[in-house]
Amino acid sequence: MSNLWLISEDSFDPSHQHHQETIFTIGNGYLSTRGAHEEGYPEEHRATFIHGVFDAAPISVTELANVPDWLPLTVHLNGERFSLTSGAVESFQRTLDLRTGVLTRTVRWRSPQGDTATIVLERFASLADPHTLFIRCRVTPEFAGAVEFRAALNGNSDNEGLAHWRWLGQGRRADVLYLHNRTRQSKIEIATAMKLAAAQGEELAREVWDAENTPTLSLTMRAVPGQELIVDKFVAAFTTRDVASDRLTDAAVDRVDHVAGWPHALSDNAAAWDREWQRTDVIIEGDDEAQIALRFNLFQMLVAAPRDDGRVNIGAKTLSGFGYRGHAFWDTEIFMLPLFTYTAPHIARNLLNYRRHLLPAAREKAKANGFEGALFPWESADTGEEVTPTWVPHFADRTKLVRIWTGDIEIHISADIAFAAHQYWQLTGDDPWFIESGAELILDTARFWASRAEWNAARNCYEYTDVIGPDEYHDHVNNNFFTNRMAQWNIQAALDALDWLKANAPASAADLIARLDLTEARLAHWREVLEKIYLPVHPSGLIEQFEGYFQRKEVDLAALEPRTQSIQVIFGIEGTNETQVLKQPDVLMLLYLLRDHYADDAVRVNYDYYNIRTDHTYGSSLGPSIQTIMACNVGKPDEAYEHFIRAVRADLHDVRGNAGDGIHAASAAGTWQAVVFGFGGLRVTPQGWSTRPRLPKHWKRLAFKFYHRGKLQKVDLRV
Amino acid sequence: MSNLWLISEDSFDPSHQHHQETIFTIGNGYLSTRGAHEEGYPEEHRATFIHGVFDAAPISVTELANVPDWLPLTVHLNGERFSLTSGAVESFQRTLDLRTGVLTRTVRWRSPQGDTATIVLERFASLADPHTLFIRCRVTPEFAGAVEFRAALNGNSDNEGLAHWRWLGQGRRADVLYLHNRTRQSKIEIATAMKLAAAQGEELAREVWDAENTPTLSLTMRAVPGQELIVDKFVAAFTTRDVASDRLTDAAVDRVDHVAGWPHALSDNAAAWDREWQRTDVIIEGDDEAQIALRFNLFQMLVAAPRDDGRVNIGAKTLSGFGYRGHAFWDTEIFMLPLFTYTAPHIARNLLNYRRHLLPAAREKAKANGFEGALFPWESADTGEEVTPTWVPHFADRTKLVRIWTGDIEIHISADIAFAAHQYWQLTGDDPWFIESGAELILDTARFWASRAEWNAARNCYEYTDVIGPDEYHDHVNNNFFTNRMAQWNIQAALDALDWLKANAPASAADLIARLDLTEARLAHWREVLEKIYLPVHPSGLIEQFEGYFQRKEVDLAALEPRTQSIQVIFGIEGTNETQVLKQPDVLMLLYLLRDHYADDAVRVNYDYYNIRTDHTYGSSLGPSIQTIMACNVGKPDEAYEHFIRAVRADLHDVRGNAGDGIHAASAAGTWQAVVFGFGGLRVTPQGWSTRPRLPKHWKRLAFKFYHRGKLQKVDLRV
Repeated sequence: MSNLWLISEDSFDPSHQHHQETIFTIGNGYLSTRGAHEEGYPEEHRATFIHGVFDAAPISVTELANVPDWLPLTVHLNGERFSLTSGAVESFQRTLDLRTGVLTRTVRWRSPQGDTATIVLERFASLADPHTLFIRCRVTPEFAGAVEFRAALNGNSDNEGLAHWRWLGQGRRADVLYLHNRTRQSKIEIATAMKLAAAQGEELAREVWDAENTPTLSLTMRAVPGQELIVDKFVAAFTTRDVASDRLTDAAVDRVDHVAGWPHALSDNAAAWDREWQRTDVIIEGDDEAQIALRFNLFQMLVAAPRDDGRVNIGAKTLSGFGYRGHAFWDTEIFMLPLFTYTAPHIARNLLNYRRHLLPAAREKAKANGFEGALFPWESADTGEEVTPTWVPHFADRTKLVRIWTGDIEIHISADIAFAAHQYWQLTGDDPWFIESGAELILDTARFWASRAEWNAARNCYEYTDVIGPDEYHDHVNNNFFTNRMAQWNIQAALDALDWLKANAPASAADLIARLDLTEARLAHWREVLEKIYLPVHPSGLIEQFEGYFQRKEVDLAALEPRTQSIQVIFGIEGTNETQVLKQPDVLMLLYLLRDHYADDAVRVNYDYYNIRTDHTYGSSLGPSIQTIMACNVGKPDEAYEHFIRAVRADLHDVRGNAGDGIHAASAAGTWQAVVFGFGGLRVTPQGWSTRPRLPKHWKRLAFKFYHRGKLQKVDLRV
Repeated sequence: MSNLWLISEDSFDPSHQHHQETIFTIGNGYLSTRGAHEEGYPEEHRATFIHGVFDAAPISVTELANVPDWLPLTVHLNGERFSLTSGAVESFQRTLDLRTGVLTRTVRWRSPQGDTATIVLERFASLADPHTLFIRCRVTPEFAGAVEFRAALNGNSDNEGLAHWRWLGQGRRADVLYLHNRTRQSKIEIATAMKLAAAQGEELAREVWDAENTPTLSLTMRAVPGQELIVDKFVAAFTTRDVASDRLTDAAVDRVDHVAGWPHALSDNAAAWDREWQRTDVIIEGDDEAQIALRFNLFQMLVAAPRDDGRVNIGAKTLSGFGYRGHAFWDTEIFMLPLFTYTAPHIARNLLNYRRHLLPAAREKAKANGFEGALFPWESADTGEEVTPTWVPHFADRTKLVRIWTGDIEIHISADIAFAAHQYWQLTGDDPWFIESGAELILDTARFWASRAEWNAARNCYEYTDVIGPDEYHDHVNNNFFTNRMAQWNIQAALDALDWLKANAPASAADLIARLDLTEARLAHWREVLEKIYLPVHPSGLIEQFEGYFQRKEVDLAALEPRTQSIQVIFGIEGTNETQVLKQPDVLMLLYLLRDHYADDAVRVNYDYYNIRTDHTYGSSLGPSIQTIMACNVGKPDEAYEHFIRAVRADLHDVRGNAGDGIHAASAAGTWQAVVFGFGGLRVTPQGWSTRPRLPKHWKRLAFKFYHRGKLQKVDLRV
């Protein structure tokens, strides 16, 4: 059983270290640290990210700043620095225990001079106290002499070369060293503190190196063959997002001072993880790969989820890499939130509160574009302003630029956010939150949709032209069905919410009516837009993804197999736009979200049409999980499993070759939806919930839990 | 007398530190170090640049990488770290001695706890051995206890946030510490080494802190009131541009090992500087400001000039700042080279050899643009490829981009390079160099000009359309007179050079004829282009800067005074393009370069016409020096002096507000031309040289030296 919780590797390959760093990311919802090695290697992408700690960056506007490095711990055998690229590595194993978030590396190493030792390094970021970080180093020498342990804090970390931190100061209080830095532009300060404790062995010497921006502790212990030495590094980190500047270094030093020691910290952390897994774990029997891989995906979501902060979101690559710079997309609301809404509603609420806090910026964006209400940014960071890069350099020719339009016209995100808020409310029954926060999200996005709708007199309908739908292979399209239908849903949900508020929270209703200017005339306009949004459906139930899609060029995707590149790389950006090939089938996505509004036949017709037109392998990483569910819907279990395996392997197998940039969060969280809503067939209606198991044929059991209106529900499906 | 060699400041203002860092730059032709303080401050632009050490950078393509920092030296009085922003600064003075390149700072400081000391820090980069760098720190305590000196090498330096260096290793040999780093993309390695020697006082403790990427030496000395303590930091730096990788750290360590001590190093350096000033100094009597300021400008050119490397150039901001990223422009050939050709021909030859080495890249550029011969890049770095940024973000709106066209169409640089090569040859009589290198530069640029010329049948002439002349306020112009005339000059010089080669070096002539395909047909085409280049001149002698310039809008510049912005900022890029306002008057520049070809009357007519249309104050920093000379030419000494003072003050007074980005090298070197060719009226012809003094009325004496055909000439003009 226990091996179904372990992710392992048995060699170190410098050319694959970025992928491995992503896989072996640990964290605790406050921060995450990529699986770079304590001793460091030249081409590594070493990083620790803390939620909300952004700083200005060229092109990407702003990015999560890789914070001062807490990992440095080097081991010196009789004066020779341990490194996997010198001497001889006699054995190597690294294991991430998903059950506790502890990463363990065991190496038997012979130094160039011939001294051999077994070195074990364990690390975790405590889930019990997220400001504390731990490394234990155990060395069993096979020689006599000395082993030196050097631990440092390093304020010189950078984001792929961009240095965000300035040095403000450092110092020492008793046996604790601390370091104080500040970001260049956003002026966020961070204090890190550490101590180094000898837990086993004879201490020969101890030095404090107050080197600027790299305070270092050196501890030398006597090496006796066969006798294990144990040294613990305790670190704490606080930023001025957590405490005031004048208490910052004290906060970090105090926290390290009060660490109760490795065994206590380890067991507190394990207990905290156990509580998480009690809620979140999904048991699959009969398919070990799926079991481990699903847990890995859930683990990566759990380390990224903000437990105590309602002003941050989860970036498209979680906190596990430089990809997308920590920016949040619709990935959060559509792919990640269901996981949290069902299994950890307090986290879902934090993520929704992030949007709630940034409503003013969304109103600014709508206004700047000539509309009313709230238009959320396609890419969002700390301020809620649009942080999608406008231009990026062409990958092949530096004198050319590529215009990125998603920040201008991929507007469906506003409806996606409203949808997620509504879903959270419906599932949790958290009326106080809905009254205080959720309703305003839904009402103000509805205002946007009503003002953005364009009247087409010839057709006698409202349209949304010049948009990008979820399928980003096609931009500047008119009447993207997904966008139009979600806009309609949003306006209807707003009208319903207002009715509900009037009945259940009249004072809040009055306040919102006044603040958002919800006059009867405006509501009448909403109803008219709602009724007249252009939403053509073929009598067969087939939906055209956007106006003119059916006239685009057909491509026989199967004939292009085997393929190792996305269709967009093969045909070019413009070339792909002219075809019917999809990055992801957004009609199917819509049918998934609004499943109850569409008949089974319509789902089947659209599945059959769009499935074969989708670049499943190299298109969007968001697609496979949803495709799993829709394949289950139409009774195609083999296809469902194929999509599911593609989704759970996305990062572990580096399917797209870019896992080094960080976890594909939407895919990772989507695997939970695939299993629960797809294979489990969970369906929640106002009347209650039901399951309709459609397990892959070799699965023996599927068990999961979720909260429904505050109560934990257990589902255990056995064949 | 001696005070006319000193540049001083008497306070520290963190908000002006970037300007002061530029002013107090020191160097030795191998590297330069900005005048940041040893102890460091958060917003500083601390930097040391080594010629040729480039690494990839976004937007600017490549940039000089700020190398690992050799400056760190902190002083701790009874445990309190000396800083100008804590405790109390009782007195402060910093002085750069232009005669020796020694920078001295004297501070009387009282620590927060009340311990007072006078701290003197002296530094220089040895001109006698350019791989060696020296800091002496003298502390006279007024208290008893201990003074700690901490010296470090810091591999974490960055370029305004962009970190170029990875850590490769570090170590210790006896009392020398070393550090080994490599650039990220260009893979240039650097080794730095240091030691710390107590020259006076009682040593209490000495520690070595082998902190990663920041090796540090700590030396604690007994503090006795009134007794001066002296500590010396010796540093050496080598890169893999100097020695092979496997000998790199040894080279640095050995060099530090063999330093003979501060007094010897200081006197060797002073002797080397004395030799430079023997050649280069210009004496002005009757105008102390002009005397000091001119020496400052010459000093900045001397610290930037490569003595021993023919594969590097001098960037538009020398080695003194981040501006223009170390890229070289026509500034080198037209503004800097005359100084060196006349006073230090060996340096001029190095700079010309840089172009010679990069001819293959210039041929590639010509070919890529559909032409023959050599088209040099507008901005040039290590490889000779075009490194002008194509697009830069708009300063006010990040979603907008500004297209930079100079890299595409500012082609006059190819003629400027040929011109400088020809001038060097004519003045020095260095025939061997001309045969081996210079002739090919002139011939292959001529090939470019002939192939680039466009036949206009209607006019019966050759044209150059769609170019940018030196006056960059007007782009995409046709028949820029400067460009057309210099092209003509280039082709003529090539024909003459070929004739000379045939007569004096027939084997080389034959080789070049074969390699460059200089058939009779081709030469006939050259002659036809030469004769028929479109070069209209009004009967009055007035020259139209480019076709249609006379029709652009007139602007009354005087009416806009007082002004604090350039005309381009006021009118916008497009708006300025539509006016007659000039960034610099390139017709006058042409008349200066080809003075002997134009009559005095023509010079006067054009001077009067263009002078009032030029943005002298905030236009090009290249303009004022040349304007000085032309004003002298037309007998306007007061105007000449006004332009001259603007030029010599450019950086000292931060006239344009951007001196923090580095020295305006063309302006600095141009001041020498202004004095020598303007006020001194030096003129060299094949028959010999003459002067025609036109000294400002308060000047009593102007004396300078220059080399003519290998012999040092002395000019001493007294009123």
